[in-house]
Amino acid sequence: MTEKWLIGVDLGGTTIKMAFINFYGEILHKWEIPTDVSNEGKNITTDIANSIDEKLSEVGKTKSQVLGIGIGAPGPVNLDNGNIYEAVNLGWKEEYPLKSLLESETTLPVVVDNDANCAALGEMWTGAGNGAGDIVCVTLGTGVGGGVITNGDIVHGKSGAAGEIGHITSIADGGAPCNCGKTGCLETIASATGIVRMAMEELKQSKLNGRLRSIFNEEGKVSAKDIFDAARDGDQLASTVVDKVAFHLGMALANIANTLNPEKIVLGGGVSRAGSILLDAVTENFQRFSFPRVAKSTEISIAILGNDAGVIGSAWLVKNRIAE
Amino acid sequence: MTEKWLIGVDLGGTTIKMAFINFYGEILHKWEIPTDVSNEGKNITTDIANSIDEKLSEVGKTKSQVLGIGIGAPGPVNLDNGNIYEAVNLGWKEEYPLKSLLESETTLPVVVDNDANCAALGEMWTGAGNGAGDIVCVTLGTGVGGGVITNGDIVHGKSGAAGEIGHITSIADGGAPCNCGKTGCLETIASATGIVRMAMEELKQSKLNGRLRSIFNEEGKVSAKDIFDAARDGDQLASTVVDKVAFHLGMALANIANTLNPEKIVLGGGVSRAGSILLDAVTENFQRFSFPRVAKSTEISIAILGNDAGVIGSAWLVKNRIAE
Repeated sequence: MTEKWLIGVDLGGTTIKMAFINFYGEILHKWEIPTDVSNEGKNITTDIANSIDEKLSEVGKTKSQVLGIGIGAPGPVNLDNGNIYEAVNLGWKEEYPLKSLLESETTLPVVVDNDANCAALGEMWTGAGNGAGDIVCVTLGTGVGGGVITNGDIVHGKSGAAGEIGHITSIADGGAPCNCGKTGCLETIASATGIVRMAMEELKQSKLNGRLRSIFNEEGKVSAKDIFDAARDGDQLASTVVDKVAFHLGMALANIANTLNPEKIVLGGGVSRAGSILLDAVTENFQRFSFPRVAKSTEISIAILGNDAGVIGSAWLVKNRIAE
Repeated sequence: MTEKWLIGVDLGGTTIKMAFINFYGEILHKWEIPTDVSNEGKNITTDIANSIDEKLSEVGKTKSQVLGIGIGAPGPVNLDNGNIYEAVNLGWKEEYPLKSLLESETTLPVVVDNDANCAALGEMWTGAGNGAGDIVCVTLGTGVGGGVITNGDIVHGKSGAAGEIGHITSIADGGAPCNCGKTGCLETIASATGIVRMAMEELKQSKLNGRLRSIFNEEGKVSAKDIFDAARDGDQLASTVVDKVAFHLGMALANIANTLNPEKIVLGGGVSRAGSILLDAVTENFQRFSFPRVAKSTEISIAILGNDAGVIGSAWLVKNRIAE
């Protein structure tokens, strides 16, 4: 096992998370800087390079300590050259040469992948995946994202669009419109946004009173957290919403598992913090819709690395793609 | 490129197909023998070994010409030791040591995989997959089977149940019962059996006359081929059935593609011989339910190797798993 350090970078629209990580996947130092999206995001690579220099000198090390940099970016990746096809949140409207720019700014080798894939690799390496070579990670946040790992490596697919689990069709006809242009996508149901949308519909259609309606009457809105809290409290209206989420999410995950039979399906993102009220209901539906042999062997669990998954998975890329 | 031969074996419940294949995936000699399922299938490995000996001597070669044997078996495989967990069609009711028996009978190295996976490898290597490293093969026969290839290799999953595409749930509530114990599985709709079942329902419920009803009145039954032929002929009742098949199959394949973004989805098996009347309708639904980037890059096509896919894929296993 080498003594060199791996640098993991999780490049988001608001902050850039960075960490020095060892060959066991342990974080030695972590820090973050704001993402400068001005000037069409052209300062980003320089900011990362400077920040790494500063941090290294702060801990009394030089670049010779570092094997390379792994970076997860919020957009589809051209794996041939490490370009990002497009990253709207960063201001990169055209194909952006992330790998080559960051390599020349840092004089270190760089490996690029998609941020959802890096999070999945992190959970595989030291998180809920616990080393499993076949896992599927589903991030339930503002949207629904995913990373698919088979035989110990990320599946990118033909044009980098593997893992678009949020755009699995859950409601074939009459579903809500999705940002992708389709309707009835899983994302319109199981994202924080989708859960709130469904609760608002229920509040409108139903006459039931209870905790959720009280929150709505007081604040004029409800959050996904309010909905899960109310359901945990026995609120009937909120429970109806959670049941619908669990039904569609459980069935979609079962269909993924009927295709891939992963060892683990890991749920991450803000919505996954609802914990067992979500996990138990999803698992029940998952079992119902899974092929018996799959139901026995594929397990659903909650992500455990939280915000560290991205930097750890990016570091995995360095360990596995860059020769010492 | 080696001059050695690969032996591919496709072990079915009725016949055992075998072939000598070169390192380009070309079939040099192929032949088949009946499967002897008497005596709980205990003669099968001896029959294969004897048949290979005879064929080699027939073409004037010895075992030194052969690198090894790949064999696809109709049951889930224990990849650690090459045992078959169970193969009801062969009379193997308990875990059966296929690899070790065939190795001692032939004195050649043996690699074992599932038959659907071997067919997928064959299509990847020299068939409709045309070398693509990410393909999904779906066999529409008496049942619906599947093989999933990512990054150029088969996905087996945690307990060998990856590729159970026939058991994706297409109808959540009120679907027809499936052999697996669930209801509403894709197999109850898109297999030959499922298509006939749906046509019989339509014949009962509808008053429409036409070619399909004439066939039914004459013969007391209809086949999947009759249904596609009648639909091609403009028969309205048959077209309704084909539309339903295409809707559910197109949506299921889109959801697989939203997860894996394969380069190709290859449709094989008897039902796929319906050709463009099926392919066009499935593709239309597939496009409708796919994430836009997936719809642009994942292509559906009909398998081209037919009955040879299994032996060619089995030979691929020898080429890629057995060192020279």
